[in-house]
Amino acid sequence: MSQGVKTAIAGVTGYAGAELARLLLNHPRLQNTPPVFLGRMGADETTLLWDLHPQLARNDGSKSPEVVPFSWEQLKAGGIEILFMATPHEQSREWAPQAIANGLRVVDLSGAWRLYERANSAVYKLEDADPAAAAKLQAEAVFGAPELHRAEIKSARIVANPGCYSTSVILPLAPLVQKNLVDLDRGIIADCKSGVSGAGKAPTAKTHFMHAADNLSAYSVFGHRHTGELYEQLHLTADQIRFTPHLLPIPRGILSSIYLRLKKATTKDALDSLFRSFYAESPMVRVHAPGNLPQIQNIVRTNFCDIGFELGPNGRDVLIISCLDNLLKGAAGQAVQNMNVMCGYGESEGLL
Amino acid sequence: MSQGVKTAIAGVTGYAGAELARLLLNHPRLQNTPPVFLGRMGADETTLLWDLHPQLARNDGSKSPEVVPFSWEQLKAGGIEILFMATPHEQSREWAPQAIANGLRVVDLSGAWRLYERANSAVYKLEDADPAAAAKLQAEAVFGAPELHRAEIKSARIVANPGCYSTSVILPLAPLVQKNLVDLDRGIIADCKSGVSGAGKAPTAKTHFMHAADNLSAYSVFGHRHTGELYEQLHLTADQIRFTPHLLPIPRGILSSIYLRLKKATTKDALDSLFRSFYAESPMVRVHAPGNLPQIQNIVRTNFCDIGFELGPNGRDVLIISCLDNLLKGAAGQAVQNMNVMCGYGESEGLL
Amino acid sequence: MSQGVKTAIAGVTGYAGAELARLLLNHPRLQNTPPVFLGRMGADETTLLWDLHPQLARNDGSKSPEVVPFSWEQLKAGGIEILFMATPHEQSREWAPQAIANGLRVVDLSGAWRLYERANSAVYKLEDADPAAAAKLQAEAVFGAPELHRAEIKSARIVANPGCYSTSVILPLAPLVQKNLVDLDRGIIADCKSGVSGAGKAPTAKTHFMHAADNLSAYSVFGHRHTGELYEQLHLTADQIRFTPHLLPIPRGILSSIYLRLKKATTKDALDSLFRSFYAESPMVRVHAPGNLPQIQNIVRTNFCDIGFELGPNGRDVLIISCLDNLLKGAAGQAVQNMNVMCGYGESEGLL
Amino acid sequence: MSQGVKTAIAGVTGYAGAELARLLLNHPRLQNTPPVFLGRMGADETTLLWDLHPQLARNDGSKSPEVVPFSWEQLKAGGIEILFMATPHEQSREWAPQAIANGLRVVDLSGAWRLYERANSAVYKLEDADPAAAAKLQAEAVFGAPELHRAEIKSARIVANPGCYSTSVILPLAPLVQKNLVDLDRGIIADCKSGVSGAGKAPTAKTHFMHAADNLSAYSVFGHRHTGELYEQLHLTADQIRFTPHLLPIPRGILSSIYLRLKKATTKDALDSLFRSFYAESPMVRVHAPGNLPQIQNIVRTNFCDIGFELGPNGRDVLIISCLDNLLKGAAGQAVQNMNVMCGYGESEGLL
Repeated sequence: MSQGVKTAIAGVTGYAGAELARLLLNHPRLQNTPPVFLGRMGADETTLLWDLHPQLARNDGSKSPEVVPFSWEQLKAGGIEILFMATPHEQSREWAPQAIANGLRVVDLSGAWRLYERANSAVYKLEDADPAAAAKLQAEAVFGAPELHRAEIKSARIVANPGCYSTSVILPLAPLVQKNLVDLDRGIIADCKSGVSGAGKAPTAKTHFMHAADNLSAYSVFGHRHTGELYEQLHLTADQIRFTPHLLPIPRGILSSIYLRLKKATTKDALDSLFRSFYAESPMVRVHAPGNLPQIQNIVRTNFCDIGFELGPNGRDVLIISCLDNLLKGAAGQAVQNMNVMCGYGESEGLL
Repeated sequence: MSQGVKTAIAGVTGYAGAELARLLLNHPRLQNTPPVFLGRMGADETTLLWDLHPQLARNDGSKSPEVVPFSWEQLKAGGIEILFMATPHEQSREWAPQAIANGLRVVDLSGAWRLYERANSAVYKLEDADPAAAAKLQAEAVFGAPELHRAEIKSARIVANPGCYSTSVILPLAPLVQKNLVDLDRGIIADCKSGVSGAGKAPTAKTHFMHAADNLSAYSVFGHRHTGELYEQLHLTADQIRFTPHLLPIPRGILSSIYLRLKKATTKDALDSLFRSFYAESPMVRVHAPGNLPQIQNIVRTNFCDIGFELGPNGRDVLIISCLDNLLKGAAGQAVQNMNVMCGYGESEGLL
Repeated sequence: MSQGVKTAIAGVTGYAGAELARLLLNHPRLQNTPPVFLGRMGADETTLLWDLHPQLARNDGSKSPEVVPFSWEQLKAGGIEILFMATPHEQSREWAPQAIANGLRVVDLSGAWRLYERANSAVYKLEDADPAAAAKLQAEAVFGAPELHRAEIKSARIVANPGCYSTSVILPLAPLVQKNLVDLDRGIIADCKSGVSGAGKAPTAKTHFMHAADNLSAYSVFGHRHTGELYEQLHLTADQIRFTPHLLPIPRGILSSIYLRLKKATTKDALDSLFRSFYAESPMVRVHAPGNLPQIQNIVRTNFCDIGFELGPNGRDVLIISCLDNLLKGAAGQAVQNMNVMCGYGESEGLL
Repeated sequence: MSQGVKTAIAGVTGYAGAELARLLLNHPRLQNTPPVFLGRMGADETTLLWDLHPQLARNDGSKSPEVVPFSWEQLKAGGIEILFMATPHEQSREWAPQAIANGLRVVDLSGAWRLYERANSAVYKLEDADPAAAAKLQAEAVFGAPELHRAEIKSARIVANPGCYSTSVILPLAPLVQKNLVDLDRGIIADCKSGVSGAGKAPTAKTHFMHAADNLSAYSVFGHRHTGELYEQLHLTADQIRFTPHLLPIPRGILSSIYLRLKKATTKDALDSLFRSFYAESPMVRVHAPGNLPQIQNIVRTNFCDIGFELGPNGRDVLIISCLDNLLKGAAGQAVQNMNVMCGYGESEGLL
């Protein structure tokens, strides 16, 4: 097998990092070029990936990959070409320019580079050492939804991997909104529900089993950080779309219930055709037949975004249901999909 | 302790029946008049309540109450005053007139008597032996939401206990809709999520653990039977309100996320006052402070309906969250609450 | 209604504290003497019980009970007779002697006073200001299993409420062990499984939803703190009984699978009679018919300990299954049961 | 890529069948020889695999594989070499001889061919048309635990894929029992807990979400069908080993807690070495360091059997914990592992 792209993962300790490690270690193109795993910058200690994530261990005579302290020197010495950053947004904001200055291409899984408008990105309270350079890099960054920005991703130096909720709302709405079919005066409602892994690995009152189990709760109403991605990617205003996240008592998976009214009455077949033709060349989107609504169960541990809909008796009211795995299509899987596009690999390679 | 009302429960085998049995057995007013438990009409066998529902068993020297075959003779002989029907809607439709002819008052937990307009009740495919008499009884039936129809319930011969979803949508909307504050041109969205007990005790593909666990799914989109209750009780049209149920991977509890826009901008305090004054005399409704949204966890195994809201930056967009236990405030608990009102007991007696 | 005993709860913030608050607030004997709720000693602030535990809130015109800073002066001024301590064992060890010096009776829910032998209690690393006084008080403390020590509890100044696991193992074994029926050379195995509330309210890696959900794990093998209670209460040695706790992916409930061999072959009926006669006067223990094994579902949110068994074909091998709710019969419920015994109330009053 | 073995799956509708379909479709050796999927014998209709198992669907231009009616003619015409039977044991018992007569090799996932002694297999109530031929085939059948019978599996015509519980008990015990280290007079206890998928896809009272969720229950005490496999594979008697299954409130995964006493005291290191050397050449078994006990979470959706242990202070009492995914190492994954051995492929190919 030929040589694959040389990759490194910064931030391999979290849930998305673990999935990224698994996907890259098993990626058919990277069998001869395993990823480099990076710990905290300045940290001395080297740890073992299998100690961090026991589910990745093997008994085939191989040894655990090491997680080595982060340094630019090492990345350059190793000839790393693509750096995945599964790091907090502050760190991603600080490191990405340095990575690019060092000749790396970046796929950033945080929210640091997703938002182009100050009004939206302000929610992250980012502080740039060189604001002008950061603004320039921001303008160059590509929002990493391959279904919408495939061509730009191909040659991008920095790809901002989308939010999990945003992906689950943008993909199902894009076909209708781009064709200007939605009655925006009526408004769009995106009622979204996510498993607990979306809240991260830190033990908190919210992620305590006793709080999350047998429960459901809404949070960040009128203020979730992913909202700006909806505005920018779908060219909508706060008046036109509302988004509410809820915490589901399950480990992973997002289901978004999206309510809208079409400007003109249509048929189920017409809507079905619209979705199918829009995603005909997108292997990671599965369009369901009308009335056959997606469920979380069918997408968990896959990189698919499933989209289905039901059309009301008036031919105008639509409920779209979309489902994806927040750690895969909503994070690590989409990051690998972006890598595939950046390297000219098959878009779904290593993801099926 | 004085004598309490004499009650009987038809349909004690299901989840709501079990809760009803528990509530009536522990009701402070009924300590000297335990309910009669009824099995299928025409059935010969007598079974034991503790065998059906082992969680109700005791070790205090007492014996299990019996579940006896259903017969009108027995109900009359026992001097039964109120008959609870936790039976399928076909059976409730058939038996309720007979019960009333026998001098009983009825609290029916099925959907058989909730809907006054043919356009809505048609969903139940009810067949009446005497359509004229049924229509007359229907006109007399009171929709058993004590918070809205307390006075009528007090003297009702037949109370139609509301649907679980409907209760969770009607109670939070009533204050706003009755005061004509909602921009109905914009439309109301009720995105509702319920635990699995709402799907009943019959083992089906849908209620199989492997389907329900770690999953979320929407169902009965644009066609759930409870929809008509929203139209009739809130005086809304299909154009003005949409309702979608989802199946949560938890045993019990409903959370409804209700989206609406007010005609005029308001403040959180004004909205809070509105809810609080509307429900000032309703002990089973708890209004939460603005921004402190209800969660399923706090209402499970209680008879409360918790209501909270968040107001958007424009002062007009509102998200209301309501929570209740589908087997209590959504079924058996509300039925006992209705009994309390019918008998002049304290409305929350035996329910705290 | 007459005056009830005056109680106070120290440590009302945790899971057991919340259950204790609920039980005492609803206790029929205490309707005129609600408990006093105590926060941390030396803390200034007064908080509201309903803010801590929203599930306890009401809408009946009443106000939330206050949680006041802890002080001995206040307890004496209020005439408190029984102090419940749902506090860490270090605090219980320090405060209990002071409480008794102040004339209070104590029900301690921690492990501080359960173990009489140094070899066992050493696991708690207790430091006594006055070791001799502590030893004396320890000798006076009564292990709060009312089924085994009813008479001593009645007059006890200090009751050490048993551990949740211990209760689930001691109660089912006591009838067989006291009658010397078990082949102790073969050894007893207690394989116990508990819901997550047993691990406490502190958010940790272990109580994170992502760790506990869809998982099962054994912990504290050969070293769980409750082991000493088994040795002392059943008069067994480490050679004769082994106990392993497991963490179940459920909020509450313990199921213990207890394996033993009888010295002589017996029949199901004989075993059944043995259990039934042993617990004939114990309203909080439910003995199941042979082969009808207890399940967690039937005891959750009750104060019952359910006991059932299966007898092997050789008439000697026995599997006993016991179930209880770790927060009730395993903690707060048993504490109230102890209070009932201490005050001469019915043993199950306020617990059904 | 070269030609792979030609396979067919009978019984693709169940949970194990779905996993088998997924594994074979993705198996690197079978990319040019996809499996044939078979429905019920005599059934006319052809269905689509993606309709049965939506999680397997793709959007890459390919079409769903068909599930065709079962017939021997078709299998022969297709040149099928290995037939996987994920069928009820009655059907496996009837069809396996016919398959072999038709020149196929069989991997049977049911219990029909696992037990060699009448005393054990009687539990399946098998009726053979030709008892003598069945007995002969039974004698030839190989118990499909590759770790124990690798050489025989290589050339077997019929492989009896082990039970899920049995695998989880036999693999951890084999090293100790084969070396005669266990004090069998003391007896071995295997307390096993399994997720709900082990109970099959049929909706029953037991598999209803409301029964399984938030619950734990023991079942088939002293009589589970897998017990005979323990006796035969480990050469133990009912006097020497007891096994109790429990139903866990999770979709998949088994954890077995195995209690035993060694004849002589040993050290953790010595035990660790024993396990490691026994499984040095077994890529699907992962031995954990002493005290680092396996958890279900780390093996779910893998084909690994994880084994760990804790040694008591006396150096003789051992608790072994083993974990595996009942649908993979306990069923479909082990079946593919057997196929790998039968075909001379790498034992873990397509399973990592």
